[in-house]
Amino acid sequence: MAQLKTNPGNYFEDFKLGQSIRHATPRTITEGDVALYMSLYGPRFAVQSSDEFARAIGYPRSPVDDLLAFHVVFGKTVPDISLNAIANLGYAECRFEAPVYPGDSITTVSEVIGLKENSNKETGTVYVRSSGRNQRGEVVIQYARWVMVRKRDKAAVCTESHVPKLADRVDPGALNLAAIPTFGPGSYDWVLAGSPHRWGDYEVGERIDHVDGMTVEEAEHQMATRLYQNTAKVHFNQHTESKGRFGKRIIYGGVVISLARALSFNGLGNAFKVAAINGGRHVAPLFAGDTVYCWSEILEKADLAGRPDIGALRTRLVAVKNRDAGGYPFKTGGGDYAEGVILDLDTWLILPR
Amino acid sequence: MAQLKTNPGNYFEDFKLGQSIRHATPRTITEGDVALYMSLYGPRFAVQSSDEFARAIGYPRSPVDDLLAFHVVFGKTVPDISLNAIANLGYAECRFEAPVYPGDSITTVSEVIGLKENSNKETGTVYVRSSGRNQRGEVVIQYARWVMVRKRDKAAVCTESHVPKLADRVDPGALNLAAIPTFGPGSYDWVLAGSPHRWGDYEVGERIDHVDGMTVEEAEHQMATRLYQNTAKVHFNQHTESKGRFGKRIIYGGVVISLARALSFNGLGNAFKVAAINGGRHVAPLFAGDTVYCWSEILEKADLAGRPDIGALRTRLVAVKNRDAGGYPFKTGGGDYAEGVILDLDTWLILPR
Amino acid sequence: MAQLKTNPGNYFEDFKLGQSIRHATPRTITEGDVALYMSLYGPRFAVQSSDEFARAIGYPRSPVDDLLAFHVVFGKTVPDISLNAIANLGYAECRFEAPVYPGDSITTVSEVIGLKENSNKETGTVYVRSSGRNQRGEVVIQYARWVMVRKRDKAAVCTESHVPKLADRVDPGALNLAAIPTFGPGSYDWVLAGSPHRWGDYEVGERIDHVDGMTVEEAEHQMATRLYQNTAKVHFNQHTESKGRFGKRIIYGGVVISLARALSFNGLGNAFKVAAINGGRHVAPLFAGDTVYCWSEILEKADLAGRPDIGALRTRLVAVKNRDAGGYPFKTGGGDYAEGVILDLDTWLILPR
Repeated sequence: MAQLKTNPGNYFEDFKLGQSIRHATPRTITEGDVALYMSLYGPRFAVQSSDEFARAIGYPRSPVDDLLAFHVVFGKTVPDISLNAIANLGYAECRFEAPVYPGDSITTVSEVIGLKENSNKETGTVYVRSSGRNQRGEVVIQYARWVMVRKRDKAAVCTESHVPKLADRVDPGALNLAAIPTFGPGSYDWVLAGSPHRWGDYEVGERIDHVDGMTVEEAEHQMATRLYQNTAKVHFNQHTESKGRFGKRIIYGGVVISLARALSFNGLGNAFKVAAINGGRHVAPLFAGDTVYCWSEILEKADLAGRPDIGALRTRLVAVKNRDAGGYPFKTGGGDYAEGVILDLDTWLILPR
Repeated sequence: MAQLKTNPGNYFEDFKLGQSIRHATPRTITEGDVALYMSLYGPRFAVQSSDEFARAIGYPRSPVDDLLAFHVVFGKTVPDISLNAIANLGYAECRFEAPVYPGDSITTVSEVIGLKENSNKETGTVYVRSSGRNQRGEVVIQYARWVMVRKRDKAAVCTESHVPKLADRVDPGALNLAAIPTFGPGSYDWVLAGSPHRWGDYEVGERIDHVDGMTVEEAEHQMATRLYQNTAKVHFNQHTESKGRFGKRIIYGGVVISLARALSFNGLGNAFKVAAINGGRHVAPLFAGDTVYCWSEILEKADLAGRPDIGALRTRLVAVKNRDAGGYPFKTGGGDYAEGVILDLDTWLILPR
Repeated sequence: MAQLKTNPGNYFEDFKLGQSIRHATPRTITEGDVALYMSLYGPRFAVQSSDEFARAIGYPRSPVDDLLAFHVVFGKTVPDISLNAIANLGYAECRFEAPVYPGDSITTVSEVIGLKENSNKETGTVYVRSSGRNQRGEVVIQYARWVMVRKRDKAAVCTESHVPKLADRVDPGALNLAAIPTFGPGSYDWVLAGSPHRWGDYEVGERIDHVDGMTVEEAEHQMATRLYQNTAKVHFNQHTESKGRFGKRIIYGGVVISLARALSFNGLGNAFKVAAINGGRHVAPLFAGDTVYCWSEILEKADLAGRPDIGALRTRLVAVKNRDAGGYPFKTGGGDYAEGVILDLDTWLILPR
């Protein structure tokens, strides 16, 4: 009989501590991807929108949106890491290193950094550190992620157990500033950028309602998720999902992150770069027809050594659905997330000073 | 307390005669935008579709569709000019000057050329002339537009009042012909262009039913409008629009213009360039699920000085929804627009002779 | 009175044996088209996804997906060949010759190779051989196709009658191997490609359930079909189709082919090139909201002269809707296609050995 030719994915007992997994499919990012990203989310950050603007501050041309690169890197890991996952539990230590430009080809490798079987012997948590590299072998993005994965066989004995220590937040001193050009005096055009608010204008504790809302359609999230070659079945198959938990397709969480980031332009228009994701949680699923709003809170401000031209803001970006963000919906008195919250994302953003 | 970080837009009393407004966000147009434009509307004009065809008639490569450039220039003005607008009242004197090629970066500046407060003291009309320029500072598109804008404060005293004189039509002698290469003999391939009908084959008064109809989906118009970074809220937010005037999202009028222009290929296949928009009116809104048809009437023909190779046709392009254009629906005996008419657009088109 | 300016298409009596038809609209394929193709179908073949991967095996860069090029070539023929068609009866002898790269400009010519009036005198079958060429005049794709076309006038006398002999399958010895670079030892990275299964691992008679399913939305198939400038009315116009045979828009058959090909990656991940389509039948229509699954059967294996690095697999690719492909649904005992089958496609695929 012929061997199985399709990819069954890895089960919990297939992972080994220290294992390195090179992921298919390498991907050249192009101007076509950038245009689709714009049409799907509507970002307006000038650095990523205009080659001329980017050149004026020292980039060779517009880098692609940090999150477009993130989704491509992430998408590669799905067939090997999370095809048999039940839940995406968290992210940490995500750093955006070298900028990605159209024409760059990205490959992803993951290292298994933790394993912990659950007491029910049916599942376990897999911790990986994934790195996307360009054609010169430079790391463009790296991040840790942990997911709950099914065992193929409940009886399989899993002896390895290690829970890695992951930082609560990326140390701002560890951000890769070499990837950000030094802005000469007057090189950043605040009017063209669309906001007069510099790094110094934001205060810790300040909250910003990003005001605008955007409704998501099935065609949009499917096109986005395929663009990243993310193959998770729940996003694409109404025939099976109609019999599933929600009766409908679940939108890839990365779509929510990108939408919220694009909406956050209205209030954080000069936060031209996501430097790190300190942690993130997809609190509830988003479905087609839902409308996404979001708000931000400034958690922390950081000077950056040797860089008087820029500063970092640590922000919590909260996305909600089908309610506006005017009241900054977040958690209830009991500590649970409030009705409608779908995303709680902790990031370091870079702004000019 | 922190300052407001989001953009409240300008209210009527914020505008001053002669004021110049540089708009965010500069935008590099790419081959990705061109492909999306094709997938969203389906244009078939050979000059914009094939670099080889364009080169044969003297362009360095295919210029992008005139209307793609128009929508990008227009989109920039929304956050400053029409965020607090109630109605888009009209366009005039729109000229397509230098061609736009993939790689060009576009910025937009508007000058306030007229102001007129309404007698209710709650709104006023703002007239602007907007110009899109490429990275060399060359004007690629300029047009006048007037919109009715809310006052922030009814009590605000507005002393400036001026209604600019705008031409009923662009003088064909003022069209920028330098932007159109001189076609050598035999350089234009009528078979590849898809129509044998030259400028000389059209008669003033002739009406053309463009036959084909196209249904618009929510995902399509949202992707189009985000591609232009047009942020008008009514196009994207079903959560608020469900409680609004129509109960649903309103499609950006530019989508209607582009669809009608693409459909007009069937009957005006050699009208390879929009040289001017003399005036335009969005007669009624379009919604997702509606089907658009259109027809044209030849209003005027113009020889172009020094250009025996090309001529200009002034046409009225009328788009209708959910009825075909076979009977040339336009106005009723009473002078109102007929049922189903959504667009009345007066243009100068260029055709080879 | 003015002449008719719109394209009425050709009727059966307009075609002549040996007639050559140059089709409008030439089309430059770009990276934008490639990105849209990826977002619409989600292909993961590494050769078409990564310039670096393609270069490692001897391509100058990633060629565009064979089927993207096919759809563009096919789309050109619609206004001249099948605007008045009732049915697309079949394909044969489709060969993918020179690779197509972003920047290539494609034109299509068809030759009428057969004509056969039907006994009802109302319709007839038109056989054409269509060839797409690039800007250097090299054939990139050629194929035969036959369609049933209406007569304009039942009384028209059609004396020409010829049914061409078309091969049941393309002879694997006639495949254009010069277009496929010779893979040096170790140049093909099986891990990055995403599947360990070589040509030698597949057996004649083997069947592969490609497992995954994908639901199609109206916006998606409309965007795809417009991207190919395919103007067949049934795909776009809900206003007329709501009164038509199915009450809804019919999805272009090429969308089904591309979706099934993309899904077939899971099981045929190294089948990086479609070398030929031996025949194909669109068994039943697909509509928005339907979910597509597919399976393949290996029909034949062929060594390729002088090419120890690659081999050809002849496969039947069967797509079904709204049922999974686990039971390999194909034909009933009576010989009819089983419930849910929508595509039966016979291809030659190339894999590394």
